[in-house]
Amino acid sequence: MKETNAAESSGGLGERDIIELMRKHFQPMPNIVVPFGDDVSAIRLRENEVAVLKTDMLVAQTDVPFGMSLWQAARKAIVMNISDFAAKGVVPSVVLVSLGLPKNLSKSDLAEIADGLNAGAREYGAFVVGGDTGEACDLVIAVQVFGTSNEESLMLRRGTRVGDILAVTGFFGKSAAGLRYLQYGGVVSEEAREDLVKAVYMPNARLQESLALRGSKAVTASIDSSDGLAWCLHELAEKNGVGFLVSTLPVAEEAVKFARENNLDSFELALYGGEEYELVVTINPQHWADAEAAVAAVGGKLYRIGKATSDKRVLLEVEGKKGEIEARGYEHFKNC
Amino acid sequence: MKETNAAESSGGLGERDIIELMRKHFQPMPNIVVPFGDDVSAIRLRENEVAVLKTDMLVAQTDVPFGMSLWQAARKAIVMNISDFAAKGVVPSVVLVSLGLPKNLSKSDLAEIADGLNAGAREYGAFVVGGDTGEACDLVIAVQVFGTSNEESLMLRRGTRVGDILAVTGFFGKSAAGLRYLQYGGVVSEEAREDLVKAVYMPNARLQESLALRGSKAVTASIDSSDGLAWCLHELAEKNGVGFLVSTLPVAEEAVKFARENNLDSFELALYGGEEYELVVTINPQHWADAEAAVAAVGGKLYRIGKATSDKRVLLEVEGKKGEIEARGYEHFKNC
Repeated sequence: MKETNAAESSGGLGERDIIELMRKHFQPMPNIVVPFGDDVSAIRLRENEVAVLKTDMLVAQTDVPFGMSLWQAARKAIVMNISDFAAKGVVPSVVLVSLGLPKNLSKSDLAEIADGLNAGAREYGAFVVGGDTGEACDLVIAVQVFGTSNEESLMLRRGTRVGDILAVTGFFGKSAAGLRYLQYGGVVSEEAREDLVKAVYMPNARLQESLALRGSKAVTASIDSSDGLAWCLHELAEKNGVGFLVSTLPVAEEAVKFARENNLDSFELALYGGEEYELVVTINPQHWADAEAAVAAVGGKLYRIGKATSDKRVLLEVEGKKGEIEARGYEHFKNC
Repeated sequence: MKETNAAESSGGLGERDIIELMRKHFQPMPNIVVPFGDDVSAIRLRENEVAVLKTDMLVAQTDVPFGMSLWQAARKAIVMNISDFAAKGVVPSVVLVSLGLPKNLSKSDLAEIADGLNAGAREYGAFVVGGDTGEACDLVIAVQVFGTSNEESLMLRRGTRVGDILAVTGFFGKSAAGLRYLQYGGVVSEEAREDLVKAVYMPNARLQESLALRGSKAVTASIDSSDGLAWCLHELAEKNGVGFLVSTLPVAEEAVKFARENNLDSFELALYGGEEYELVVTINPQHWADAEAAVAAVGGKLYRIGKATSDKRVLLEVEGKKGEIEARGYEHFKNC
């Protein structure tokens, strides 16, 4: 777990650079519905029906923070993949898992991993239906999620127009504070500690909110915030040729408190932390009320945090603070 | 790469034991078309159309023999997954890849991996359409394959009846000889060396033969021989409540020669080697000619090697040799 500066890095390649490098070597599939560069891949099954696929890998060494149980690690491996389905408004149907297992695991360890995988899938209505195992030097959980969707209601990264409302499904900063606490310690009450650590150990994908938003037809673009809020905003800005002005930053109370008591910047935690699985969406202003009501109807809340601008920068102007939000966030590899 | 004895092992769990242990912790999906225990998973999309999914992971430490290039390793990761599609008679449509990458890889290493992935997919008509990367201590290539099929023509592991013809799509033993040579050396001519090593470095999936066989409607059960011919036969026997009498064992000439010159048993190489991607099928005797003609029509050859018996043992009776074929083969984990 580390925060990195994509803009400043010059040496090794970052995760996104690697994907971009490799993508250039893959012969593109003709007429693909959602190619590389979005949260999922999608291919057409028939008119207006697509198969949606996602794979991402959890590696213990980099993705499992101190103190996380095997059950939680296995569950997280599923949740982080389902969050990408959530970002697109797609119901995950089935999950397959490729497991790389170190030699030293016991039968009860394996059972714990299996239970965690099952729990992660079932929480979101999906089933684990297949997989394979092999030996590896570190615990590796590669998850594949499959589902189907009609094509026109997929919520892609591209679609934002200048003037669209920028919104998120929750508060930020708890995961970053929790990760920081687990890594470096810090001043924190017992109650707050539990809360911050829970944000790290038990992440949740915003699937219900996502399906509600899809139903509202108000969303013009969508992404999940797993790489950090700042990075998401830059990604949406770049994909859509727009900028953003963020005028409210919903920082979780616990993160604000942790920052205050440990001499940290709470905005830093909220913007650049990553490993948080909120939805970051742009909304057609004419349909804002529909979007807000749809999310409320499933017990969630949609927070308006800014708007899309023709000025292509990503700016923060909140509580007297003014400045550019940097294009950095949580990313594997960089500066290793 | 090691040969193991599943029957005798008592200590750690083998790959299949682990999958079986974990499967018991997964809530079964209702009405699933192909659940755990076959080469692929399949779920119903609509009447008589299924989504077919497979994932398997290549880990350098155990799956990449000495001297195999990154390009070959990446290609193999794809081919071993596509071979499972071939075993079911399903066209692979798209591939996604989760990569665990050690820090020390260079840009040209990454390009080589990408080219190998692309080559493996394109050889069989599929496209690499998505994926993700993360850092890992060893090269890990987790591949997901997706395709669709009509339900009724899927060639599953279950379906063999007593009296069915047992057949394979090629000769055995080259991979095992090649692996043995790479691991321990041996007496071998330059030409034979190239041939044996090529079998290891450049495996091929029998997709064309498989689609031809599916078309013939003669196949009653099918599996690929990646875990070794002996293991396949026991798996088909167990799944179908039958036995097999093997009366011809097609051992590759190069494997026979390698065995002779290195004081090895060529039948041992052919039966228990693994990492060979032939199809092992049972055929309704009334449709044998159709099956044979179908495979010939795509440039392949179907070899009749025995028959399914009511005696539930798996027996070899060939060239004066008589005996039971043991339930062992290549498997990760056991006796590590």
